[in-house]
Amino acid sequence: MKKLINDPQNVVAESVEGFVAAHADLVIASDNPEELFVSRAGGAVQGKVGLVSGGGSGHEPLHAGFVGVGMLDAAVPGPVFTSPTPDPILAATKAADGGAGVLHIVKNYTGDVLNFETAAELADAEGINVRAVVTDDDVAVQDSLYTAGRRGVAGTVLVEKIAGAAAERGDDLDTVAEIATRVNAGARSMGVALTACTVPHAGKPSFDLGEDEIEIGIGIHGEPGRRRIPLAGADEITDLLLGPIVEDLAVTSGDQVLLFVNGMGGTPSSELYIVYRHARAQLEAKGVTVARSLVGNYITSLEMQGASITVLRLDDELTALYDAPVHTPALRWGV
Amino acid sequence: MKKLINDPQNVVAESVEGFVAAHADLVIASDNPEELFVSRAGGAVQGKVGLVSGGGSGHEPLHAGFVGVGMLDAAVPGPVFTSPTPDPILAATKAADGGAGVLHIVKNYTGDVLNFETAAELADAEGINVRAVVTDDDVAVQDSLYTAGRRGVAGTVLVEKIAGAAAERGDDLDTVAEIATRVNAGARSMGVALTACTVPHAGKPSFDLGEDEIEIGIGIHGEPGRRRIPLAGADEITDLLLGPIVEDLAVTSGDQVLLFVNGMGGTPSSELYIVYRHARAQLEAKGVTVARSLVGNYITSLEMQGASITVLRLDDELTALYDAPVHTPALRWGV
Repeated sequence: MKKLINDPQNVVAESVEGFVAAHADLVIASDNPEELFVSRAGGAVQGKVGLVSGGGSGHEPLHAGFVGVGMLDAAVPGPVFTSPTPDPILAATKAADGGAGVLHIVKNYTGDVLNFETAAELADAEGINVRAVVTDDDVAVQDSLYTAGRRGVAGTVLVEKIAGAAAERGDDLDTVAEIATRVNAGARSMGVALTACTVPHAGKPSFDLGEDEIEIGIGIHGEPGRRRIPLAGADEITDLLLGPIVEDLAVTSGDQVLLFVNGMGGTPSSELYIVYRHARAQLEAKGVTVARSLVGNYITSLEMQGASITVLRLDDELTALYDAPVHTPALRWGV
Repeated sequence: MKKLINDPQNVVAESVEGFVAAHADLVIASDNPEELFVSRAGGAVQGKVGLVSGGGSGHEPLHAGFVGVGMLDAAVPGPVFTSPTPDPILAATKAADGGAGVLHIVKNYTGDVLNFETAAELADAEGINVRAVVTDDDVAVQDSLYTAGRRGVAGTVLVEKIAGAAAERGDDLDTVAEIATRVNAGARSMGVALTACTVPHAGKPSFDLGEDEIEIGIGIHGEPGRRRIPLAGADEITDLLLGPIVEDLAVTSGDQVLLFVNGMGGTPSSELYIVYRHARAQLEAKGVTVARSLVGNYITSLEMQGASITVLRLDDELTALYDAPVHTPALRWGV
C-alpha cells in the first residue's frame, strides 16, 4: 500500500485538519473529534433551511468539500468507506439548524440510511424539523453489497448543489426537499473501474481486477457492478455506461440535460474529457441538448482509476438553481 | 496499460475536443489540428498583453485549463510529455496578440525553451513584440534529464495566475514580464512520486519504482530526483520536500507565503490535505504566515501517485493579483 499518510487510523482526522486549515474562510471542524463534522465557518444561517450530508470518507471532495455558501451547511465524514454514527450526524444537524428545519441528503447505503434516520429522530426530539432525501441514481444494479435498491452515487453532488441553491434563495423545507427529490429522480449514473482501491486500515486492495480486466457498473466502494469485461476503448466503455442511463432516464430528442463525467480519484482529467467527448456526441446524436457540463473528481473512491457518467434532465428551474452562485472548497462559481 | 483512451495516438486530440466542448463558453481550439492550440473563446483582448504558455501534454489541467479571463490567452498542448513545435506556438501567439505584445511563459525544459524561442523570433518577424519568462522553481536538482538548470514545475501555475491578473488590469508587457519573473524568483517547489506513470504511446511505465520505494525530488515527467528511499510516513516525506524549499527560499519569521500542495494526478485529495497539514504546521512553527493556500491537481503527470509542495513568498501586490478574479476551466473565483 503506497499512500501519503501517517498512521492509517488517523487518515480522516489529519485530512480534515488540513482541509479546514486550508479553507478556514469557509469551513470549521467540530470541537469534539469524537463527533467529527465540518460546517460553515459562519455558523448556521438564521431562517435558512440547513442542508446536511455525510457518509464514509474516501469519496472526497464529497461531502465536506461542498460545505459553503449555496450548497451544504454541514458534512459528516465517517471512517473510510464506513457510515458515521448517529451522534456526529445529530451534532451536525444541530449546527446546521437555523430555525427553518434541516434536510438530510443521504446516499442509499444501508448504514447511512439507518444512522441518518436515528439522528433525525434524535433531532426531532430536540425540536428540529428534519426531512431526508435518499439518493439512488446508480442504474448499474438493483440491490448490492451494502444496499437495498439502487445505490446513491454521483447524482448526489447535483442534488447537493441544486437543493443548496434552493435553500440559499429562501425556499422552505418542503420545497427544498421536493427539489432535491426532483433532482434525484431526474439523474442517472453508472461507473467503471479500471483498478481497485485500498482502504488505508485494510492495507490491501478491496477487490482484484485482472491486468486487462475492468468492472462495468462498479459502486463507489468497489462493490460489484454488472460485469467484468476485457479492457476496451474509451468510446466503447462510454457506450456501455451511457446506454443504460439513457434507456432508464428515457431522454429523447428535445430534452435538455446536464452531463457530468466524474473521476474516481486516480484517473487523469484528459481521460475524463475523452469520455465526455463521446458521451456528449452520443447524446447530441439523439437530439438531446447538453446544456450544462461538469467534468472532474467530485465523488471519488480513494485512488481508484475509473470514471462515472451522470445525466440529469434539466428544466428551467433546475438550470437556474444549478447556475446560482456557489462558494465551497471544491465547487465555486459566481462569487 | 489501463487507460480510458481510444487510439493512443489520438489522446491529445480527443481530450482537447472534449475539453473545448465542455467549456465552450471559455475556450476554443484552433481550426488547424496540425497547429493545435486552445485560446479564449472571445479572441484576443485588444490593448491587453497576451499570455501564452504550453508544453507537452499529460500535465492537465496545465496549461489549457488555465485559459480564460485573468489568466492565459492561449495554451499549446504538445504530444504527451513532448514539446509542441514552433508552428502551433506561433499560431497561438498570433491568436493571443491584442496589439500590446505577448508574454511566453515557458517551463524550463530544453525542448520547450528552444521551440518557444523559435516561435518568438517568427512572431517578431511578423511584428509582434514577444517576451519570455522561463520558470525554474524546482529545487530538487540542478540539470536533469531534458533540462539545463532547474526544472519549471508547479510554480508555473502561480506565475500564470499572477501575471495573468497583471495583464488583465492593463499592465504593459515589461511590467507583466517583471511580475512573472518576480513570482518565479519567489517560488520554490519539490515533488515526490509513489508510483510511475505510463505515456499512452509508450504503453509501459516511464520508470520503475519498487513496491516500497518512493522517489524524492521527482520531475513532472518522471525524471530522476534526488534519491530513492523506502516508503515513509506523510509527515516525514513532507519534511523531505519542505526542507530544501525553505532553505533555498530562505523564508523566515514574519514572511507571508502561499502554500500550494499539488497532486500528481493519481493521489486522492485527502492525502494532499495530510501533506498540507504538516507543511503548514512546519511553516507556522518557523513564524511564517500561510496567507494563501491552494490544494489540488493543477500540474500533473498523467496518473502518477505523488505530490509536490510549492512555497511562494508573497508581498501585497502579488497577494492582490493572486486574489483577483479568474475564470478558467480549472481555476475560478471572484466571478
